[in-house]
Amino acid sequence: MNQRRAFTAEAMWLDPGDGPRWMRRPWVELDEAGDITAIGRAAPEPRDDLVPLYDLGAAWVLPGLVNAHSHAFQRGVRGRTERMVPGVQSSFWGWRQAMYDEAGRLEPETLFDVTRACFHEMLRGGITCVGEFHYLHHQHDGQPYDQPNELGYAVAAAAADVGVRLTLLDAYYARSSHEQPPRAEQRRFCDASLDAYLARIDGLRTSLVSERVRVGLAPHSVRAVPKPALATIAEYAADHDLVVHAHVSEQPRENEECLAEHGGSPTSVLADAGLLDRPRRFTAVHAIHTTPADRERLASQHVCACPTTEANLGDGMVAGADLLARGATLCLGSDSNSIIDLVQEARLLEMGERLRLGRRLCLQDAYGHVAPVLVDAMTRGGASSLGWPNLGRLAVGTPFDATVVDREHLTLRDVPDDRVGDALLLAGSSAAIVHVYVAGEQLV
Amino acid sequence: MNQRRAFTAEAMWLDPGDGPRWMRRPWVELDEAGDITAIGRAAPEPRDDLVPLYDLGAAWVLPGLVNAHSHAFQRGVRGRTERMVPGVQSSFWGWRQAMYDEAGRLEPETLFDVTRACFHEMLRGGITCVGEFHYLHHQHDGQPYDQPNELGYAVAAAAADVGVRLTLLDAYYARSSHEQPPRAEQRRFCDASLDAYLARIDGLRTSLVSERVRVGLAPHSVRAVPKPALATIAEYAADHDLVVHAHVSEQPRENEECLAEHGGSPTSVLADAGLLDRPRRFTAVHAIHTTPADRERLASQHVCACPTTEANLGDGMVAGADLLARGATLCLGSDSNSIIDLVQEARLLEMGERLRLGRRLCLQDAYGHVAPVLVDAMTRGGASSLGWPNLGRLAVGTPFDATVVDREHLTLRDVPDDRVGDALLLAGSSAAIVHVYVAGEQLV
Repeated sequence: MNQRRAFTAEAMWLDPGDGPRWMRRPWVELDEAGDITAIGRAAPEPRDDLVPLYDLGAAWVLPGLVNAHSHAFQRGVRGRTERMVPGVQSSFWGWRQAMYDEAGRLEPETLFDVTRACFHEMLRGGITCVGEFHYLHHQHDGQPYDQPNELGYAVAAAAADVGVRLTLLDAYYARSSHEQPPRAEQRRFCDASLDAYLARIDGLRTSLVSERVRVGLAPHSVRAVPKPALATIAEYAADHDLVVHAHVSEQPRENEECLAEHGGSPTSVLADAGLLDRPRRFTAVHAIHTTPADRERLASQHVCACPTTEANLGDGMVAGADLLARGATLCLGSDSNSIIDLVQEARLLEMGERLRLGRRLCLQDAYGHVAPVLVDAMTRGGASSLGWPNLGRLAVGTPFDATVVDREHLTLRDVPDDRVGDALLLAGSSAAIVHVYVAGEQLV
Repeated sequence: MNQRRAFTAEAMWLDPGDGPRWMRRPWVELDEAGDITAIGRAAPEPRDDLVPLYDLGAAWVLPGLVNAHSHAFQRGVRGRTERMVPGVQSSFWGWRQAMYDEAGRLEPETLFDVTRACFHEMLRGGITCVGEFHYLHHQHDGQPYDQPNELGYAVAAAAADVGVRLTLLDAYYARSSHEQPPRAEQRRFCDASLDAYLARIDGLRTSLVSERVRVGLAPHSVRAVPKPALATIAEYAADHDLVVHAHVSEQPRENEECLAEHGGSPTSVLADAGLLDRPRRFTAVHAIHTTPADRERLASQHVCACPTTEANLGDGMVAGADLLARGATLCLGSDSNSIIDLVQEARLLEMGERLRLGRRLCLQDAYGHVAPVLVDAMTRGGASSLGWPNLGRLAVGTPFDATVVDREHLTLRDVPDDRVGDALLLAGSSAAIVHVYVAGEQLV
């Protein structure tokens, strides 16, 4: 374990108790466990025991970034779905087939390998906590492995190997769509029954949860999960105080099918099933093709935007400003992991709004600033979504999970001190990140 | 000057005479001037005099990237326009005011400094040739400097200092809008008359053009240039065989004002003025708010997309696939230089189409591949736009301007060999670029 020590930097996004902000020349003191025990300013209180967080230049430090939505194994199809295949639609659904082919190839060892590589790339990009929306459960014919959570354990082992924190969002998947049984490629995703799924969750809750691992529930989507199962999952999650994630209105077809089956939108079905009853315990992933009424239903929940994936798949752009105005908590995900750069995801969330609305400065905080809203989405918003109320901020009593940015990176050079955060978020990328800490330990 | 030598790499985007493609294990031989004299394959013709282009790993090599639209001094406002200012619109026009404030502060020395820093950042990102759309000409009150091209020379000196090739697209700017004289902040942009402008161009043509510098004409926009002046500029450009660039339909307001003044679209006005008569000698920058008829008028010209700037300013997304289908040549620009990454610009051009059209694989070549279209836009397309027919490709008789990509960069790792280009263009960024050559000389 680490020793007690104190770090300093040119600036840190610190929360002294009344909300986070950039503090110049601060220090943070850590205990042996890597938790922050005190914070202060190096001036006018000079101290000679401070270790600079970046010894090659000036450091600007953010909390460790939180990636609220990932399918790690999809890293394996990066660059492999960008050519027309004869007979296959040039659409989301054609891409899905390529992704299913990859899913079909994986065994526990290869899943571990691709997940570890993916989480390693995340860590290098400043991500210290990831929500893995995990739906690859069983053998190719749908039979469980001897250990029914074998593949979930492989994901957790990969996270442990890399050092990132994990919320395993274990998915329930029952059907291809309304009255359509799972397709052959989808059998691996499906449990024999809802009871079998919840029994797996019981197993994960009792065996997997640790200082760096949480478990959440993930009814895949209203397409793949019948409404009675949604209600049962809502009850189980409430009974065990678990977060719930679901894909919501990523593609227009999902909405059309839902309307035909249920006479309402996906969000309305989730609400009817009770999944939106507990404030800030549900995360709607995507929530792109939503009505104002849908967005009002999500006003006390999280919405996870995944802009690089949503662009790649032609999904569309989320109404982030409207959701923010209604009170929803925004968070971000790398989703397909074609691109792993939460700074870009944050920027593109704002840029999508600018393109949709034809104006600038769409996601504003109370002072009319954009960057703090984006920092929130990639830190506290994600942490709340994944059930880690203590993460996503640097404050006394929280673990020192931190992302160190080189203030002299080409993208930030010559930017005035009071606009470094703006430049990083609105004009930068994760390429400026030089060091990453988890629980006080330098992993990058 | 350099010696004769021969380079090799794992792969290069080479043109053996019938169009560019990835060639594996190639070599290129250079003469003392840095021009390519021969190309071939290292296997089955092994030779022992080959110098690897990247000695730390496997290199994938593109032609030097061509940035067809830049306002270098705007690098100075990076990160400084991302907060609401009371009383100022949260729009393109509010941003323009901040940009004008920056323009008003610059003197020849400070313009040189910010331009040099900006071009240096471009070079680091693999850009070896830039089209600088230069409209900052005179003293603050509009009086010419003793040397009327003083600021143009400062831009050229910055390019020479960094080592990038330059097309100085010298702008003509006459008015704020129809029947509105220039505003105080715009006086620096305005020549006393069209004759005074063309006299400046005469000066640039005779004094500035060299092996690494070209000059082009840039009637700023139909907003800022009356129609008779557009026609005169078209004639001058034809007489002297110069390329012409103009901002076209970036914002809806420009179209509305043009309709009121001329009864037609900006593109139709440019066509009527004769600016579209010479094939591939005109570049419409942005061309976002265009009709199918406008895009047909541009079918034998260039369209320069600047996706990161166009998102930042809430401009919108260009109909790239439709333009490509009609025969237009696409190219890319970093424009405001808030972000300098031509790989991202290329990706976002395709992603904008996916978001606009709700499908994938929008910009396809004859084989249904996306990446080669994007490579073309950031190499040959830009070179054609800027009047450098010999740039943008690696072929016998062309200068060895090259961008060396680290194939083991995190973003490309584990991607199959035959999909490295796809991953770089659709999932990567300029962060993977490790070395840059201009005329055979390693500058990065």
